[in-house]
Amino acid sequence: MSGVVGIIAEYNPFHNGHLYQLEQVKKRFPDDLIVIAMSGNFLQRGEPACLDKWSRARQALENGADLVLELPTLSCVQPADRFAFGGVSLLNTVGADKLFFGAEHSNYDFMTFARQVADLHGNFQRYDESYAKTFQAAITETIGHPVDQPNDLLGLAYAKANLRLGEPMRLYPLQRVETSYHDLSLHPGQTIASASAIRKNFVLSQPAAAPYMPAGTFHDLEKGPLLFWNDFWPLLRYRIISSQISDLQQVYGMTEGIEYRLLDLTQRLPLTMTFEEWVKEVKTKRFTYTHLARLAVAILLDIKQDEVAAYNEQPYLRLLGFNERGQKQLAKIKKDCDWPIYSRVSGEDKKKQLAVDYRAGKVYQLFNGQEQDLKRAPFVFSGVSRKIR
Amino acid sequence: MSGVVGIIAEYNPFHNGHLYQLEQVKKRFPDDLIVIAMSGNFLQRGEPACLDKWSRARQALENGADLVLELPTLSCVQPADRFAFGGVSLLNTVGADKLFFGAEHSNYDFMTFARQVADLHGNFQRYDESYAKTFQAAITETIGHPVDQPNDLLGLAYAKANLRLGEPMRLYPLQRVETSYHDLSLHPGQTIASASAIRKNFVLSQPAAAPYMPAGTFHDLEKGPLLFWNDFWPLLRYRIISSQISDLQQVYGMTEGIEYRLLDLTQRLPLTMTFEEWVKEVKTKRFTYTHLARLAVAILLDIKQDEVAAYNEQPYLRLLGFNERGQKQLAKIKKDCDWPIYSRVSGEDKKKQLAVDYRAGKVYQLFNGQEQDLKRAPFVFSGVSRKIR
Repeated sequence: MSGVVGIIAEYNPFHNGHLYQLEQVKKRFPDDLIVIAMSGNFLQRGEPACLDKWSRARQALENGADLVLELPTLSCVQPADRFAFGGVSLLNTVGADKLFFGAEHSNYDFMTFARQVADLHGNFQRYDESYAKTFQAAITETIGHPVDQPNDLLGLAYAKANLRLGEPMRLYPLQRVETSYHDLSLHPGQTIASASAIRKNFVLSQPAAAPYMPAGTFHDLEKGPLLFWNDFWPLLRYRIISSQISDLQQVYGMTEGIEYRLLDLTQRLPLTMTFEEWVKEVKTKRFTYTHLARLAVAILLDIKQDEVAAYNEQPYLRLLGFNERGQKQLAKIKKDCDWPIYSRVSGEDKKKQLAVDYRAGKVYQLFNGQEQDLKRAPFVFSGVSRKIR
Repeated sequence: MSGVVGIIAEYNPFHNGHLYQLEQVKKRFPDDLIVIAMSGNFLQRGEPACLDKWSRARQALENGADLVLELPTLSCVQPADRFAFGGVSLLNTVGADKLFFGAEHSNYDFMTFARQVADLHGNFQRYDESYAKTFQAAITETIGHPVDQPNDLLGLAYAKANLRLGEPMRLYPLQRVETSYHDLSLHPGQTIASASAIRKNFVLSQPAAAPYMPAGTFHDLEKGPLLFWNDFWPLLRYRIISSQISDLQQVYGMTEGIEYRLLDLTQRLPLTMTFEEWVKEVKTKRFTYTHLARLAVAILLDIKQDEVAAYNEQPYLRLLGFNERGQKQLAKIKKDCDWPIYSRVSGEDKKKQLAVDYRAGKVYQLFNGQEQDLKRAPFVFSGVSRKIR
């Protein structure tokens, strides 16, 4: 019997590494449906997506995905554990029985690790990054060796989420073939590079980046606009300096008095500063780069604690695109699904459950020029998706 | 015995009409001191000043003023009655016994009018602009003819404030010689034009505007940057679309549910829209252009009701500049003054009473590049101010 493969992805942008992953899935489970839980316009590490969610969803569908769902902003701009739980729950809700993900060590038995460290997430509520360090030490002690590569750690977080949900999915870690996640160089002769390397090198020289992605992605990048934090940075800076401490204190994730440091430094630092330089000035031992970048998204989008709580209480599904097979799967799960399913956003939806995604889209639209939500229909892919090589 | 002449001004920028006013004061009261209560970086009609408060204060001192005090943001971005009361109280506090102001009808007996309409400001608390219309009808009925020209109306507001304070000042309305306040054209051969006409024409052709202002102002305009609402508009638009209704509801002056209209229209209107076009789309019968523009400043600077209340409870003096005579007057009033006097802003002040002015300065600085408050000393004018022609 054919099943449903789930993948949690950012596709920032969709490149040959992602294509390779989809090809591996299809080789192994040719009859399975592939569902993607994809971040929207703001990503897990606290940054805007380089292309909007519609372009990235289309790229995935053109390259073999059957159904692309948005991982809502509140679920996605989160530390690894929460991000993973949001993604795995979503895939579980649409019936996924397998979870594919890239890992630096595909030989790891992630579910076993998850059972070993299940009780280590005791301090889940406070998720400051120094917690990450303590957590890492505890992992090393419990498992017997460190699990500290970015994708391995995410894999462990997926496994923990899967465990928490009663193990609805079987995990398929896929050995990452590309160079390190942090490697920002392209390596001529190869056809796979990290998304960061692709973004960076595309900006420097478009043709140099071409071999590392499908033509559709390259076309989207050429068309642009390609967005980065520096586009949004003047708005964030303005938001901080024009806010009162009591406003900042209401922002989700504003803890331990970091608001005083944020306000004071942002008022004093030179106007020529870039976003990256700003984060490096503001960060502390407890508020690392990524933690601050996520906090920056929460400030930029005015995300409040109660909005996160409401999402956790009642998550939802938002369709970005599908092909015929994806549509059939949707029809199948619809009647028993206890999450609301949004295919178009109405004027009422934007005031209610979709308010944060809508705000995120509105802010994104300031630079990309395209309405992101209201009345936009999911992308229906009717073409022939790329054949397996 | 020599006295103190007070003038409430915006100097946006300081031009020959303002110079003419100072010359008239000096002709009539050659030994009097001239004190200016000048708006800071955001003005009464809800707009950013074209040049910062320091340039404008310097212009005034170079042209005959002895002492320039800032009319704080909370006192100045207000409807006419509150604006006038803030300015007249401030001048009263520094010992002014005369108030000079331009009027379309200098023959009006403003103090008598004030006594006649004193009880007409019953609805003071609600100051929506449709109130202005009812108020105007009541004035016409009581006084026997309309008082509806912009400067006449402001004069009446000054007179009412003076009355409320026990008439510490004698009023000297000065016939406006320039063309109408709303006239945006320059008239070759004349040397006086409205500030709006000067700003508009300077942008079109710098030399054409030169004859209408002192050389010091012209130099400042040339140096720039000249700021307008359209500079701040992207920030305001971002602020609105990224805010929740509950945030907007906390902004000073947000009444009658206008926040819903503001949010909805700002989300929907095209990104190509200018500030002016936006106001024209959003305005209603009750929320006129100027009312909305002031509300826009409150949103931009995140001004809350409790901040306005705190200012009304305890106003303050902020020195922008003085000459030797001005300094002597300051020394004289200092010991009996029950308002705090700020000459430099410390890191503590900016968190307390001066917080709103500091925020206003920080937002202004984003476009003008100059720190507006912290550690800036008042401008001490030691040169020879312009001789009376």
